[in-house]
Amino acid sequence: MHWVAVDWGTSSLRGALLDSTGKVLAEQGHPRGILSVPAGGFPEVFESLFGEWMRPEGTRCIISGMAGSQQGWVEAPYCACPAGLADVVRSIIDIQPGRIALVPGLRDEHAGVPDVMRGEEVQIFGAIALTGLRDGVFVLPGTHNKWVRVKGGRVEGFRTFMTGEFYALLSQHSILARTLDADAPLDEAAFLQGVTQSGNGEGLLHNAFGARTLALFNRMPKSQLSSYLSGLLIGEELRTQSLQTTREVVLIGSPALTKRYALAISATGVSTRTLGAEATWAGLHALATQLLPTP
Amino acid sequence: MHWVAVDWGTSSLRGALLDSTGKVLAEQGHPRGILSVPAGGFPEVFESLFGEWMRPEGTRCIISGMAGSQQGWVEAPYCACPAGLADVVRSIIDIQPGRIALVPGLRDEHAGVPDVMRGEEVQIFGAIALTGLRDGVFVLPGTHNKWVRVKGGRVEGFRTFMTGEFYALLSQHSILARTLDADAPLDEAAFLQGVTQSGNGEGLLHNAFGARTLALFNRMPKSQLSSYLSGLLIGEELRTQSLQTTREVVLIGSPALTKRYALAISATGVSTRTLGAEATWAGLHALATQLLPTP
Repeated sequence: MHWVAVDWGTSSLRGALLDSTGKVLAEQGHPRGILSVPAGGFPEVFESLFGEWMRPEGTRCIISGMAGSQQGWVEAPYCACPAGLADVVRSIIDIQPGRIALVPGLRDEHAGVPDVMRGEEVQIFGAIALTGLRDGVFVLPGTHNKWVRVKGGRVEGFRTFMTGEFYALLSQHSILARTLDADAPLDEAAFLQGVTQSGNGEGLLHNAFGARTLALFNRMPKSQLSSYLSGLLIGEELRTQSLQTTREVVLIGSPALTKRYALAISATGVSTRTLGAEATWAGLHALATQLLPTP
Repeated sequence: MHWVAVDWGTSSLRGALLDSTGKVLAEQGHPRGILSVPAGGFPEVFESLFGEWMRPEGTRCIISGMAGSQQGWVEAPYCACPAGLADVVRSIIDIQPGRIALVPGLRDEHAGVPDVMRGEEVQIFGAIALTGLRDGVFVLPGTHNKWVRVKGGRVEGFRTFMTGEFYALLSQHSILARTLDADAPLDEAAFLQGVTQSGNGEGLLHNAFGARTLALFNRMPKSQLSSYLSGLLIGEELRTQSLQTTREVVLIGSPALTKRYALAISATGVSTRTLGAEATWAGLHALATQLLPTP
């Protein structure tokens, strides 16, 4: 029997129609993230987008992502780390019993400061299923990047980095915006120069100003400065990771972002492999096989 | 004879009427920073604000700050570090010979990346004159903070940190803005908690996200979060400084900002002393005594 998988994010959502083996039969994406949905408006938006797929009697849907947040459809309390697939399945919330289920996010805690994810946990379980790796480091680049440690197929713990949001703030709203082109294509040499520069011990708050002065003194063309800044930020993030004992990092995300992380991580001698949207559908399928009577 | 000192910044300017001993007879401040002045409009703005003070025949004026930048009145090329008062005097530009002079900024360079200041060099020379310290560490908190090493009364070198701008971006434009009050008064305990947290080795990109999750889990009230974020940023800046051999740091700036640096630096066992606007007038006076025939 066919079923529906939805990854409902903050600014956009993606949905897929799958068969019982997890094969994707159709996909759709919409700029209808939770911030665009008025309070109480989730059922209506859902039916308008997925009503057709849900029409056959008994069709089920599993939703992951920010739809389970305070500002979402229904709040699904976070599941504590370490957490495996079975722990997440136990915490799934029925929005419409027997029809629509909502996956909770995960939370971790470091010295009294909580950390959270919503949606990425599904991508990780999907990546575990697709790669067969039950131990390792998984990185999910995005506005709020996640570095995730997986042990025995469970999410042992994770940390969030605001790298993507810092890049957007600095390249669009700071003094750097005057002299760089945020939409310029990736310049690999300038990017790696930024990664190297981030290791000089002077810190991001100082190094970011260099992206201003290099422009002031015409030392770097406008078209390279955004790549340099991106390298400074991703390099700063990498500096906090201990990858000495890591052979391979699994990257999950869009090609534009994972390519940058692959470049920076490869420069440290660690290899990478990359997954895209297929990790989301594989993760929701893994949940479905445990949750749905006839997935 | 009386003379006029002007510190012309990016978003505002301050002017003072001084006598030949450097005593401030009158002060004025205006929101007429260089960004508010149309191209070619500097002479008119200057006369409208300071024409009265300049009326007596032969009255001189010295201007420091961003008025000497590319977007300013006249571009005054940076003076290279190390630079003392005499080096800066030699690089002063006559805007109106015998009437209005413009002080250049300083530049330094680290591994191929330039660093610059405009206006702060005058405050440093003023602080040297006021404190009698000819060797030491001088810090000028602001949108783009400067950490300056002074040796033998000259500026040996310096580094800029975008700490103030990062705070504005994060507290007003990032996801953190939803749960913190950027205008809340300083909470010293929360501030120092942020300073301590910044030393955990996880980096600013991760620690900043904690200011979001502490709010999500109601672990810290909204009124304390801006102080916590400020502590994270200033702590991050301090971590890059080697203050082991420093006994005292001279802070120059507004009371609201210097207080935060004094708190964070004192927590490392280094004492501080603080100067305000008087450093600017003392610095321009020090230049005037070398520049003007009868200051």
